[in-house]
Amino acid sequence: MLKGHQTWVFESKPVIIASAAVGGPFEAQGALSEDFDTLHADIWLGQDSFEKAEKKLLEEAAMKAIDKAGLKKDDVQFFLSGDLMNQIISSSFAARTLGIPYLGVFGACSSSMEGLALASLMVDTKFAKNALAAASSHNAAAEKQFRYPTEYGAQKPPYAQWTVTGAGAAVVAPEGEGPRVTAATIGRVVDMGISDPFNMGVAMAPAAVDTIEAHFRDLNIDPSHYDLIATGDLGAVGHRIAGDLLIEHGMKIPKKIFTDCGLLIYREEQPVLAGGSGCACSATVTYGHFMNRMRKRELKRILIVATGALLSPMSYQQKESIPCIAHAVAIEM
Amino acid sequence: MLKGHQTWVFESKPVIIASAAVGGPFEAQGALSEDFDTLHADIWLGQDSFEKAEKKLLEEAAMKAIDKAGLKKDDVQFFLSGDLMNQIISSSFAARTLGIPYLGVFGACSSSMEGLALASLMVDTKFAKNALAAASSHNAAAEKQFRYPTEYGAQKPPYAQWTVTGAGAAVVAPEGEGPRVTAATIGRVVDMGISDPFNMGVAMAPAAVDTIEAHFRDLNIDPSHYDLIATGDLGAVGHRIAGDLLIEHGMKIPKKIFTDCGLLIYREEQPVLAGGSGCACSATVTYGHFMNRMRKRELKRILIVATGALLSPMSYQQKESIPCIAHAVAIEM
Repeated sequence: MLKGHQTWVFESKPVIIASAAVGGPFEAQGALSEDFDTLHADIWLGQDSFEKAEKKLLEEAAMKAIDKAGLKKDDVQFFLSGDLMNQIISSSFAARTLGIPYLGVFGACSSSMEGLALASLMVDTKFAKNALAAASSHNAAAEKQFRYPTEYGAQKPPYAQWTVTGAGAAVVAPEGEGPRVTAATIGRVVDMGISDPFNMGVAMAPAAVDTIEAHFRDLNIDPSHYDLIATGDLGAVGHRIAGDLLIEHGMKIPKKIFTDCGLLIYREEQPVLAGGSGCACSATVTYGHFMNRMRKRELKRILIVATGALLSPMSYQQKESIPCIAHAVAIEM
Repeated sequence: MLKGHQTWVFESKPVIIASAAVGGPFEAQGALSEDFDTLHADIWLGQDSFEKAEKKLLEEAAMKAIDKAGLKKDDVQFFLSGDLMNQIISSSFAARTLGIPYLGVFGACSSSMEGLALASLMVDTKFAKNALAAASSHNAAAEKQFRYPTEYGAQKPPYAQWTVTGAGAAVVAPEGEGPRVTAATIGRVVDMGISDPFNMGVAMAPAAVDTIEAHFRDLNIDPSHYDLIATGDLGAVGHRIAGDLLIEHGMKIPKKIFTDCGLLIYREEQPVLAGGSGCACSATVTYGHFMNRMRKRELKRILIVATGALLSPMSYQQKESIPCIAHAVAIEM
């Protein structure tokens, strides 16, 4: 049911009966490597393009989640997926392979939680007997499309982030064992005028704050409701700004429960500048690491606030600033 | 509620309380010019890029629909929108202007009905007190991104189609006057191996047929249930193939009720080759022409089968075939 202005409460608490995370070689060296189902040493995944490699990552995560759920792909009712590629080809081509009725979503790196929110809505209202939500990104495919081919060796400022190579997927069902989706807050677009495409963590921080505030206002709860509140991919700089903004707005989230998927996924010694980013950042950390911690009962209630920078290279070239959004999903064990 | 494998039945029959269609100069000369709320003589809409002109079209359609519904933008709960631009910037930038909680969708030219299906689901289940669904395209922006800048004057084969410059929007609410959304069928990706990006009507025809068959199978009804069944943008060649395929599959839709938005929007003497296409094709014809005909009681029950070719210029360059999809929405007066 609708609560407040922009939050959905799922009274039946749809269950994430299975989830999967797939990563590349850089993720294999990362801090959360234990939480991936599959890690590829080859960034090409044996394909002849990075785009095809990304599609493969997404297909693997989807099939792994379906398999862990004890289902076959024909048993899955709807597939909701998004990614960063133009015309979300990773998702659409994976949907062709899967053959499941498909809803493409796009909220840049917030696509992961946009998909999970809609999948949970469908299951909660019995408009689906189950649904598969997924998202992917590939470092080299994203760099090539949004900035420069990695082969150029272009330099980046220290506040830039590293697009995660990977994919995450979750099967949501009305009943079963596993973490349950209790609520979702759909974000508004917030644009504070940042136009530097390397500075996306900073651009997205106000959108994350806007959605976090809406979530607590709509549900009339406070941060102590959660063991952990994780933004998607603000990175070190954006995370600090989000924390400061929240305090300015009179909402202090204790440091020990406020984190960012982009700060968790890699090790400090990896050259990822301000941290991880990309649709796969929140997708793999949530569907791998956080789901595992919930299943181990280390976390009881979490809020994932996936953040998205809704720019395109074209909008940047036309001197537009960066519209940003964040969608939050609450999960409990 | 879910019916069959991939169809939603909206028991409360959410009402399209208002809709709007905005077009460009070519649409002003078209067969349905009377059905547009606003027609622009300037393809640039006074903007300095075609992309910004498209955003403007979408904002105008959205604001017009909100206005006709007697609402203000702050009264609208969710905005669901999609378009053809990379990273759906038209939709996301319009969402920034509107400030309404936003869900970006992508199904290429099927985005129009993907948005309407999801908006209807939210209203039907009381997860939204209302929702705005919209889609846009711009001929010159699409040509530039997918093929060649129009200034090059590149020639096209006769089976190519003409991307509609325009936008359509609809406000869906639980109660009120107007056509009501009764059901939606979510499509699967179908790819018959066509790889010529000028031949999209042909590529999409099997996807349209797949969704039409699923719709009738899931609801256990036949084509006589509808006064009109319109595909989105198959154009002349794709429309003929869809008709033939339906007959082959044992489902004959009488010629007088089976049409295509891309065949209706322009006049025969306009140089549009095989007909109209683009997200705005099904969006403007549905939210302008068909809604007007329903309000005049000329049509009682219609099925809109919006078709989408899920390719990107990159997937084409990498020699991939064209995955296609169609989402169908049933509307009655």
